Amino acid sequence: MNSVYVVGIGPGGGEQMTGEARKALESCDIIIGYTVYIDLIRGQYPDKTFLTTPMTQEAERCRMAFEEAEQGRDVSLVCSGDAGVYGMAGLMYEIKGAYPHVNIKVVPGITAATGGAAVLGAPLMHDFAVISLSDLLTPWEKIEARLRAAAMADFVICLYNPSSRKRKDHLKRACEILLEYKRDDTVCGTVRNIGRDGEARQVMTLAELKDTEADMFTTVYIGNEQTKQIDGSMVTPRGYRNV
Amino acid sequence: MNSVYVVGIGPGGGEQMTGEARKALESCDIIIGYTVYIDLIRGQYPDKTFLTTPMTQEAERCRMAFEEAEQGRDVSLVCSGDAGVYGMAGLMYEIKGAYPHVNIKVVPGITAATGGAAVLGAPLMHDFAVISLSDLLTPWEKIEARLRAAAMADFVICLYNPSSRKRKDHLKRACEILLEYKRDDTVCGTVRNIGRDGEARQVMTLAELKDTEADMFTTVYIGNEQTKQIDGSMVTPRGYRNV
Repeated sequence: MNSVYVVGIGPGGGEQMTGEARKALESCDIIIGYTVYIDLIRGQYPDKTFLTTPMTQEAERCRMAFEEAEQGRDVSLVCSGDAGVYGMAGLMYEIKGAYPHVNIKVVPGITAATGGAAVLGAPLMHDFAVISLSDLLTPWEKIEARLRAAAMADFVICLYNPSSRKRKDHLKRACEILLEYKRDDTVCGTVRNIGRDGEARQVMTLAELKDTEADMFTTVYIGNEQTKQIDGSMVTPRGYRNV
Repeated sequence: MNSVYVVGIGPGGGEQMTGEARKALESCDIIIGYTVYIDLIRGQYPDKTFLTTPMTQEAERCRMAFEEAEQGRDVSLVCSGDAGVYGMAGLMYEIKGAYPHVNIKVVPGITAATGGAAVLGAPLMHDFAVISLSDLLTPWEKIEARLRAAAMADFVICLYNPSSRKRKDHLKRACEILLEYKRDDTVCGTVRNIGRDGEARQVMTLAELKDTEADMFTTVYIGNEQTKQIDGSMVTPRGYRNV
């Protein structure tokens, strides 16, 4: 039976790719993905055939992968970060029914949450919640309820998609909600372009984060009650008792 | 200035290690870690010096790394999974003050949450919360509050340390709390020995999970309202609208 590898290439598609991901890409004739992600790896695989679709064509991209595999080709579908975290792995399973002769093999990658955490220091050392601020596929009320729950229970919070051209104020709105539960000086951080050229981090307070502009290449971290700034890094202690 | 690399070797220390992690280990004279994790990689690096400490000696392990680096040696401190998720990265920053001439560089790895998700299918496709059930460093009341918050706000939930010899009933207690908010037939999954020999997955309902015995090598997933079983895999749709 033919397989499609659904491969997370890590945040930048470079050294943060796993050995398993590299092996999958090397074994394939065809690599399929969103244009921007393909551009991250194209130069590393000059002998492969690359097929790209634009941002909104996710289902089309999945069908393309299944159809190539049905015809006997070895195919990888790539996602930045991890294919199973706001990536394409779920949609592949949802569409799979129409292609009974093709298997799916998900190859995990470093997702932005942990890739960016390593840049900031160690913000995710304890229980954490990952929330996307994109309301393209999720009603804002559901996002807001999750922000409130995560703040109330003192999770460290990691925000994906903090902003976009169409929803410039989402991060500000999220911070206003979090500030109902958390101190003004809660330690926060942002990382832009994780694992890519121009990687940059900032550590700040929640009050400052509220007035920070983030773009779609930024991942945002809000500390728990114990998170501190050490030497410019953002660090959450592992436990609530002394070590 | 000397550096200590704090390296996540992924769940099994094999093909799920990143290129960056391999480069760090190869560049070092000395590799330090908990005995069990060192055993995962020792055979791959026959020329290195390995220093190990037992499970409860985390602070001692960190000091060992700093002291070797202070003496001019290139040192990696390894953790399974990601060093920044219930790993050693935070403690390294907390101890760093005593070693002003040593830098810390965290190298991210595939954490159990995403590594296990790839084995199950695509359970983490939407907002999720990661919670450790170990009450060694965290009061159980705090863990319980987080379980309640995550269930109420319909996060997918990933549980680390679901059980140990001393707290055999933690997973059962957690499931009982979750069942106050979630349907009996909520789709759940477990993965044992992620990325290691004997890797095994199970997909089941929350009612079944309540009566499942998990050990310390198991990672547990509880779906959100939309999570389904497709062809034996655990899949959470990406959004709440049709794609």
